[in-house]
Amino acid sequence: MTGGVDGARDVPTGAPARIDTPSPGDRRLTRLSLNQRTVAHWSLREAVTGCVDAGINAIGVWREPVAEAGLPTAARMLNDAGLRVSSLCRGGFFTAADPTALHKARRDNLMALDEAAELGCDTLVLVPGGLPDRDRDLTGARERVAEAVGGLVPAARERGVRLGLEPMHPIFAADRGVISTLRQALDIAECFPAAEVGVVVDTFHVWWDPDVIAQIARAGDRVVSYQVSEWITPLPPDALLNRGMPGDGHIDFGVLTEAVAATGYQGDIEVEIFNEAVWAAPGADVLATITRRYAELVAPHLCTADPD
Amino acid sequence: MTGGVDGARDVPTGAPARIDTPSPGDRRLTRLSLNQRTVAHWSLREAVTGCVDAGINAIGVWREPVAEAGLPTAARMLNDAGLRVSSLCRGGFFTAADPTALHKARRDNLMALDEAAELGCDTLVLVPGGLPDRDRDLTGARERVAEAVGGLVPAARERGVRLGLEPMHPIFAADRGVISTLRQALDIAECFPAAEVGVVVDTFHVWWDPDVIAQIARAGDRVVSYQVSEWITPLPPDALLNRGMPGDGHIDFGVLTEAVAATGYQGDIEVEIFNEAVWAAPGADVLATITRRYAELVAPHLCTADPD
Repeated sequence: MTGGVDGARDVPTGAPARIDTPSPGDRRLTRLSLNQRTVAHWSLREAVTGCVDAGINAIGVWREPVAEAGLPTAARMLNDAGLRVSSLCRGGFFTAADPTALHKARRDNLMALDEAAELGCDTLVLVPGGLPDRDRDLTGARERVAEAVGGLVPAARERGVRLGLEPMHPIFAADRGVISTLRQALDIAECFPAAEVGVVVDTFHVWWDPDVIAQIARAGDRVVSYQVSEWITPLPPDALLNRGMPGDGHIDFGVLTEAVAATGYQGDIEVEIFNEAVWAAPGADVLATITRRYAELVAPHLCTADPD
Repeated sequence: MTGGVDGARDVPTGAPARIDTPSPGDRRLTRLSLNQRTVAHWSLREAVTGCVDAGINAIGVWREPVAEAGLPTAARMLNDAGLRVSSLCRGGFFTAADPTALHKARRDNLMALDEAAELGCDTLVLVPGGLPDRDRDLTGARERVAEAVGGLVPAARERGVRLGLEPMHPIFAADRGVISTLRQALDIAECFPAAEVGVVVDTFHVWWDPDVIAQIARAGDRVVSYQVSEWITPLPPDALLNRGMPGDGHIDFGVLTEAVAATGYQGDIEVEIFNEAVWAAPGADVLATITRRYAELVAPHLCTADPD
């Protein structure tokens, strides 16, 4: 992949690239991580190879493709490729009201913690879960999330894995994530040591929040993952697949990235995009666009020195 | 229209009605208002006739169908029918960055205030407006809303019309309403006397907010309009038309209605639904369903005594 200004095109817009594609080794890419869901149609092996080819040094993996590869195989594959595993997606779904479902969720979260440990990944992303069927008690569901996180802390501590509670855009409050703001997530996280429970800052979920900058500052060393994706309009018809390529929408990545950097966050920064048009594009083109957009919109705002 | 349990069906679900359809004069309907947008395919005259036939005593009107009828004709029609005009929708759209567009928005808002006064309507609903094209400065857009509301206050006062700033669900933060929470709307409203600037509480927009009950209490006599519509899943594909019939989704109308009633709010309660399936149904069936759902889900939570 040569310089974007020499003919590369961005996906999914098809517009000419605005900057040259960074080459592997480019220091602007040091902390970039590919969230595997961005290339949903790739196997884990394809994603690993794609990262190495594009000069991406870290990957956020999902449990399902890891299971498809087989856990020990996946761990070896990631290790052999020299990729850091920035997060495992995902545990959580804590909001069931009936005891059997709650017990099943707990068992599933313990398995996720085991998998994270086996993969050498120190962060498990927790999706809160939505309202149970025909249940309108949002307050009750939120309380169950707080309780379930607490119940998971000892097992996470034993395995050396941090729990990252992810507040989700209010568009998902009914069916996916009843924790809607960083403030709420921090109210829960702060019941536990910062080394054990933190929060995931995902630009798509939090960009609209009038309180976002203050809450990122409050989070401090509880930011366990920083994920970037874009709010685009018009919203694609499927509410679950409405994230865009950074730069194609309305989010000011500079302001949010500087706020996260100011907390001292030194971890990887995942690009996580759920979008049919991105999924339909060739994976290598997706990764090339990501490295360009990240180098243009995110990397310059990481005020803290990169490790290299 | 006879009792629902005798064969009436709800729209748009098609399910058998759960209660008898309240008859005109039923005291549970005293404060129910039809927001005209709920029957978008009806003219103002059809909506007025529909309300009278269904025993609905108030209507929230939109500027476009009022202009189609002609303002004096519309005023006479509403007066002759004995309908209260619970609100005029809508002014606002304050977020343009360029001076010409800002000036045009101001002129348009002054016209809306004139129209409200002429219609005998004491409340103008203000939709904040979204981000200008290619503009990612959400904070700046929010500041322009605050300034523009302030600029409109003297003209509103002269005409005896209250401004109702409507916080909008964060799903609309980019393209329609940069004021995302009741807290934000109240921070602006409280710069002015409560008799001049208040807030609109729309269940669809605020139901997810962890702070909603506290902020409704804070609003007190600044609640200038209470609107009900439902959050349904899966979300319909068009993000602007994703509201549901109360009772078909995830919102606890009891909790929110009781919070509004506890402020001492004595005004009308509008049912405002933007939804293709509702619009496709016969208007009389829409109104019959609304009277049933309102009588079932909202009226019982109006703890304060009805005027009759």
